[in-house]
Amino acid sequence: MTVRVAINGYGTIGKRVADAVSLQDDMRVAGIVKTSPSFELDLAQQRKFPIYANTKENMALLQQKGISVQGTTEDLLDQADIVIDGTPSKIGKENKEKLYIPRKIKAILQGGEKAPTVECSFNASNNYQQSYGKNYVRVVSCNTTGLSRSLGAIKKALGITSARVTLIRRAADPFDDETGPINAIAPDPITIPSHHGPDVKTIIPDLDIVTMAVIVPTTLMHLHTLNIQLPKTTTAQEIQDLFAKTPRILVVESDKRISSTASIMEMARDLCRPRGDLQELAVWDKSISVVNGNELFFTQAVHQESIVVPDNIDCIRAMMQLTDDPLTSMKKTDQSLGLKKWW
Amino acid sequence: MTVRVAINGYGTIGKRVADAVSLQDDMRVAGIVKTSPSFELDLAQQRKFPIYANTKENMALLQQKGISVQGTTEDLLDQADIVIDGTPSKIGKENKEKLYIPRKIKAILQGGEKAPTVECSFNASNNYQQSYGKNYVRVVSCNTTGLSRSLGAIKKALGITSARVTLIRRAADPFDDETGPINAIAPDPITIPSHHGPDVKTIIPDLDIVTMAVIVPTTLMHLHTLNIQLPKTTTAQEIQDLFAKTPRILVVESDKRISSTASIMEMARDLCRPRGDLQELAVWDKSISVVNGNELFFTQAVHQESIVVPDNIDCIRAMMQLTDDPLTSMKKTDQSLGLKKWW
Repeated sequence: MTVRVAINGYGTIGKRVADAVSLQDDMRVAGIVKTSPSFELDLAQQRKFPIYANTKENMALLQQKGISVQGTTEDLLDQADIVIDGTPSKIGKENKEKLYIPRKIKAILQGGEKAPTVECSFNASNNYQQSYGKNYVRVVSCNTTGLSRSLGAIKKALGITSARVTLIRRAADPFDDETGPINAIAPDPITIPSHHGPDVKTIIPDLDIVTMAVIVPTTLMHLHTLNIQLPKTTTAQEIQDLFAKTPRILVVESDKRISSTASIMEMARDLCRPRGDLQELAVWDKSISVVNGNELFFTQAVHQESIVVPDNIDCIRAMMQLTDDPLTSMKKTDQSLGLKKWW
Repeated sequence: MTVRVAINGYGTIGKRVADAVSLQDDMRVAGIVKTSPSFELDLAQQRKFPIYANTKENMALLQQKGISVQGTTEDLLDQADIVIDGTPSKIGKENKEKLYIPRKIKAILQGGEKAPTVECSFNASNNYQQSYGKNYVRVVSCNTTGLSRSLGAIKKALGITSARVTLIRRAADPFDDETGPINAIAPDPITIPSHHGPDVKTIIPDLDIVTMAVIVPTTLMHLHTLNIQLPKTTTAQEIQDLFAKTPRILVVESDKRISSTASIMEMARDLCRPRGDLQELAVWDKSISVVNGNELFFTQAVHQESIVVPDNIDCIRAMMQLTDDPLTSMKKTDQSLGLKKWW
């Protein structure tokens, strides 16, 4: 069975997931939906993705601009088995009610949607099987995905008594020429905890986690400082070895001139992955520290534009029941995308 | 007795301390030392501060530029009771050995110098009396001053079991047109803990504190996220009331459009203090949160250019034995500088 995947919303996530789907042998891009002309749409046409518009009016508009349009969103959904909703926050929920439920098509929403909108939240490393055969699932946000990968690995190996995290968030994506701040540190939210802790609990329910978050003037990556109380003693080396063998976590070496999010992303560009993306969570080797035997500290960085892409692919496999084994799906995904080898 | 204060190094700290000294009735600026022409030196001359050069060569250079120079550093030191060393990091230590000890002049170094260089480290809110009559003292750095103010107040009121802090540091001061990064988050240091925790212990010795630090592309203020385990239960209101009555801590109201370090500094500019400085530590009211009864969280911001200025004034009083009562000195300082009223 080749799963037919519709991509509704061809933005930061949608365009990346479309490329990733087209690299799989068990799924294909049935089509993408875009509302208005853009260089991205021109490139989608070059990639030979079937193009659909969200309305008949926009269909005419795109056709005027020389885009070959196959129909509207509804037409695409009728020819797909599952839809990746990459529309802006809260539109995903609307689309589920108005478009997906009436057509009985499975849908994957993104982290901008609230957890109760869907049957369950998804992170391949932690709870793949919960989404097996489900109809409406949310792949959690970039920050929650990053936290779930590292905290999930530690919890499985050692347990976690409590996790206290500060998220230092990039203010805008690199393409964004409107959003600020350009010279400020903004607590966001000012209240504590931030929503990230509860969001991680949608993936790892029995976790004592409190998160604080600020926004800073940079576009490249989010950075997290973590302070974790463990129920047993460990060493920095043990944690580094654990991360080294964990899928989708890259231990980066500060001694090799990886001194900031800028140098991590320069390394990602030199890896020559599409768009210079880094789908793995990056953990600085020398940041991993243990105090008093059972208190762990480390610093990690999240490429907000791409970290959820492999999880979207795995989520398709879980919901479409292509395999019930998370590692089988993750290996297939990571091989096709050229990610870190862990198998 | 009017204490004669020499200012060696008229940069970010030196120029501010000179202005603050000139507002006191028990001390005066004996002179300032500058190495090269600058707009700041022109303004110092307008302020009628006696001007000295660090060498005879630079004395001639400054005179050529129309500056009236009284002599060299050595000449100034011979006419002063105490010197504020505001030179760049590590030069202070050299100056102590080469200039101050031979002339038996008391000296206050800044936070860029290491603790063992001096007899003790100083923060007015915590350990004023330790520096009473001392000859060589270091006023701790801006970050350490900020942490000492809030942690010291909490420790005195409730005790502290442990403090875990992430420092999100401004990359450069506003005047600085060379230093980066301009688009990255850089762990600095990558290793954990950062030096800030041990530095706070030079002020509050029996404190269990671990700090993590990153640098971000902004110039206005440092920001700290704090997670504190207390030996007893408390409430957010109790902590807010404590800060409200504590000298040199300003509880800022997020509901009054204080949403970031940018809006805090805009408020400081509207207060019309010299240079738009904010010498108090700022704590966001709505950030103060208590989890499980005895785990405290809050977010604070530090104006790196000015927070240590009042402490430098108090340090002069302690070392010159003008008063052995910290609150008497702090009240005098804060009244003269127009800081928050707490007396």
